[in-house]
Amino acid sequence: MSVLPPDMDAGTFAVFLEELRAVVGADWVWSGDEDMFTYRDSFSPVWNTAQERHASAAVAPESVEQVSQVVRVARRHRVPLYPISTGKNFGYGGPSPNVHGSVVLDLKRMNRVLALDEARAFCLVEPGVSYFDLYREIQDRGLKLMVDCPDPGWGSPVGNSLDRGIGYTMGYFRDHFGAHCGMEVVLPDGEVMRTGMGAMPGSDTWQEYPYGFGPSPDGLFAQGNFGVVTKMGFRLLPLPEYYRTAMITVPKRRDFVKLVEHVNYLNDSALIGEVEYGSPMRAKMADRDYLALVTKTGGPSDAEMDAAAEAAGLHNWQVELQFFGPEKSTLENWNYAKDRILSAIPGAVAIEGEHFPLPATEEQLDHARQPYASSIKRRRSLGVPSLGEWKIVRDDGHIGFFPVLPRTGEAVFEVQRVLGDAMKEFPALPPYFNALTTPLMWHTHTFQMVFAPSVRHNDPAHNEMAHNAMKKCVAVAAEHGWGDYRAAPIYQDDVSGTFSFNNHILRRFHEQLKDAIDPDGIIAPGRGGVWPRRFRQ
Amino acid sequence: MSVLPPDMDAGTFAVFLEELRAVVGADWVWSGDEDMFTYRDSFSPVWNTAQERHASAAVAPESVEQVSQVVRVARRHRVPLYPISTGKNFGYGGPSPNVHGSVVLDLKRMNRVLALDEARAFCLVEPGVSYFDLYREIQDRGLKLMVDCPDPGWGSPVGNSLDRGIGYTMGYFRDHFGAHCGMEVVLPDGEVMRTGMGAMPGSDTWQEYPYGFGPSPDGLFAQGNFGVVTKMGFRLLPLPEYYRTAMITVPKRRDFVKLVEHVNYLNDSALIGEVEYGSPMRAKMADRDYLALVTKTGGPSDAEMDAAAEAAGLHNWQVELQFFGPEKSTLENWNYAKDRILSAIPGAVAIEGEHFPLPATEEQLDHARQPYASSIKRRRSLGVPSLGEWKIVRDDGHIGFFPVLPRTGEAVFEVQRVLGDAMKEFPALPPYFNALTTPLMWHTHTFQMVFAPSVRHNDPAHNEMAHNAMKKCVAVAAEHGWGDYRAAPIYQDDVSGTFSFNNHILRRFHEQLKDAIDPDGIIAPGRGGVWPRRFRQ
Repeated sequence: MSVLPPDMDAGTFAVFLEELRAVVGADWVWSGDEDMFTYRDSFSPVWNTAQERHASAAVAPESVEQVSQVVRVARRHRVPLYPISTGKNFGYGGPSPNVHGSVVLDLKRMNRVLALDEARAFCLVEPGVSYFDLYREIQDRGLKLMVDCPDPGWGSPVGNSLDRGIGYTMGYFRDHFGAHCGMEVVLPDGEVMRTGMGAMPGSDTWQEYPYGFGPSPDGLFAQGNFGVVTKMGFRLLPLPEYYRTAMITVPKRRDFVKLVEHVNYLNDSALIGEVEYGSPMRAKMADRDYLALVTKTGGPSDAEMDAAAEAAGLHNWQVELQFFGPEKSTLENWNYAKDRILSAIPGAVAIEGEHFPLPATEEQLDHARQPYASSIKRRRSLGVPSLGEWKIVRDDGHIGFFPVLPRTGEAVFEVQRVLGDAMKEFPALPPYFNALTTPLMWHTHTFQMVFAPSVRHNDPAHNEMAHNAMKKCVAVAAEHGWGDYRAAPIYQDDVSGTFSFNNHILRRFHEQLKDAIDPDGIIAPGRGGVWPRRFRQ
Repeated sequence: MSVLPPDMDAGTFAVFLEELRAVVGADWVWSGDEDMFTYRDSFSPVWNTAQERHASAAVAPESVEQVSQVVRVARRHRVPLYPISTGKNFGYGGPSPNVHGSVVLDLKRMNRVLALDEARAFCLVEPGVSYFDLYREIQDRGLKLMVDCPDPGWGSPVGNSLDRGIGYTMGYFRDHFGAHCGMEVVLPDGEVMRTGMGAMPGSDTWQEYPYGFGPSPDGLFAQGNFGVVTKMGFRLLPLPEYYRTAMITVPKRRDFVKLVEHVNYLNDSALIGEVEYGSPMRAKMADRDYLALVTKTGGPSDAEMDAAAEAAGLHNWQVELQFFGPEKSTLENWNYAKDRILSAIPGAVAIEGEHFPLPATEEQLDHARQPYASSIKRRRSLGVPSLGEWKIVRDDGHIGFFPVLPRTGEAVFEVQRVLGDAMKEFPALPPYFNALTTPLMWHTHTFQMVFAPSVRHNDPAHNEMAHNAMKKCVAVAAEHGWGDYRAAPIYQDDVSGTFSFNNHILRRFHEQLKDAIDPDGIIAPGRGGVWPRRFRQ
């Protein structure tokens, strides 16, 4: 199988690759099936089908100057580049491009931590720096700083935040794009731009004040294709003195509504870190009658759920809380949370968790006490990168739809019912949306839910089912106003299409801007649903 | 004096105004010197000079549909519109445009609070809603929500945040643009666009998740001219249970460096609200010898400053702290802050302030105990809008330069010296940058300083001096990497010019985008330093 860039013949492609080698050196340009294998998306539901999108080559520059030159070469030849940081964006397309034949611009060699400041709590990193790299650099230098890292932690702060990835600590750090401060970008014509205070020569506040003066274009580069981000600053958490966990359970199904309101208050007041909702009744899903109840068409009634929980001697819901701060403050914050919720919800029960000074010991990281955080989650809660979630990947990988929902209990019940019913068409899938499905609190002020069908390299029928389920789930959710926050290239047009207010004006606006700076689609055409003129037909 | 839009004669102007009247009604279009007086910038240093920029007319639509139609009419006639929300942006140009002859698009009639949610802590407002309006609506409905308001509070959340205004409570709410969530914008061709989850029809998460899917253009509309913002969402603070103030003083000049590091830690850990740095020695500035010392060319030495403070029996620095949260948590946070700083800085003294449950009583708002917050500041600290700062305006108004500085004590000392020396050329000005000048902590992670020369309507010589001082201060600060965060139209090109990395690529990028959607400059040409093709010559 020979893959070529769009509108290019093999002879010109060879010339183009020679020009890339002249920029980055012969060792840093790859093409051909064997070398390009690692640039395939191993989580792809269209793996080994005609729909799989293959890159034609990859090029790895080591500096912003080389990135600029690569972009200029690509522009001259009208070759689409697909920039990746570490390329670990599994579930969202990995290193694989929107456009078949694109050349992967692999930024892995640009892996320098350019600034790391304890007193001002920030870093400036290149795209190839991973969360592991950043964490290690902090430990090696003995700095009292904490990273908010995704799980697994092999991805890069730059890549993760540009795809609007999330973490698991305090609210304003969990939103990785929101925690960025300052960017350097190579534009589609090869010019190097710095945003915020980076635009002022000699400024030492690039990572302290995000806006600079005048309009701020940073948002165009997240889930977008307006340039190649080559440096990015991030706010880091000052290492808290102390860490504390706890759990609250509430008996009745309808108690969830009040529970959410109180947890929202604690979250928005910065008294707690990320929370994890769940249900003590999940253990009962092995019981066929109970499974039938929680997956019942139209949803179970409150009375049915309450009766089942009472029969089991369990509560309907739980929330795991975590507190960061001075030791006594974490205790008082927990006491406040407990008093507030227990006095508001009859029968609510508070359960103390673990608590210890930070940084945690290896023992504390490895042996988190159940039923609270597993040791995997313990690490991510404390900003210690691991390969945790990677270990629980089913089959050969998965795709993902994480709809954004109103932060209310009622909305959660509605999603359980609507999407639960809609997905009954795909009985081979686990019941992602059942009456025990709880929302994620990843971003600062948003609920999301998980829909993540697995893929199997040797089972095209399964993959096709997963693919169809995914498309249907996106569509049905959109009918109810629940939209995806992130998608793999093969789903980006579907998802983008659901953000359709006023005849897709948001997309049309982005297309207008894209055409102005990159009509030939040199940078990631199609990314985020934004296609330049050349590819719009 | 007859003011006409650029390239337009009186006859066509009359036709144009008729067309505007057809859209909004005859009562809502104004022109002529008398009616247009209130659209002049009464704080202008070029008041009544040839450089003053006058609007030719004003139009006040009452709905987004009317805004859209006004924009289409203006586009057909190539008339620049200058959108204002409440037009109170005093010190930054007020309602007066960048381009002489522009038509003010006055959004004051669009003053509806469209959503206000206690459990999810957000609002959705139109541009004409003032902080007073929003505060009153919250009180009238008895909601436990707090607004972070600027001072004075007659401005609008939309207008203030689009100019990147600030407040005085908890870090992530003080950054008013950063606290926004979702926008509706009328584009230069009259199309209506919604950003974030607002782009998904039927979504109920427009004020909960800011990004939606794909690129996020919101930053282009702040200090920019890519559209007219007609709706905007904001996160609000859940009303904290309790409020507590305190002060710490440190004896020696150099102690400031450590003090800043500890306060940064408390701030970045969300343990405190806005802080106010100061000096107990400011009272001594009436003493001529001491004034001479703190304004000495090249700056005083540490030893000189320490000797003077010791002779006066006073400390060199103070910081006022405020704590929001559960009662016991605020106490523990204060104990932690106190222990941390007192154990790190020999001779530091901790002084308890006031503390009470929220909402505060009128008595607590009106009689804040000195030397902590004045009653003016008390209100703004607690999100109660007032006309506080307005009362202390000198002469007829002022202009303002608030450079962004590194968040370190050393940077503060350097700014005191460099800008203090530079401004000696203007001895009639107060010594804005002297050895007791302390930084502002308005934004979440940024220091700024105040330079705000007054203007006098009947004293052109004074105004010219202030104008020249302003220009010099911007230029000298830029040589050291200290850039302005916000400027009046007459200074926007100067300030924008200092953000010059790579031959002004940031500005050139914005110009390219602006040309793509608004080459004729229908929306605020020149705003934020961005000029469309038509006006670039």
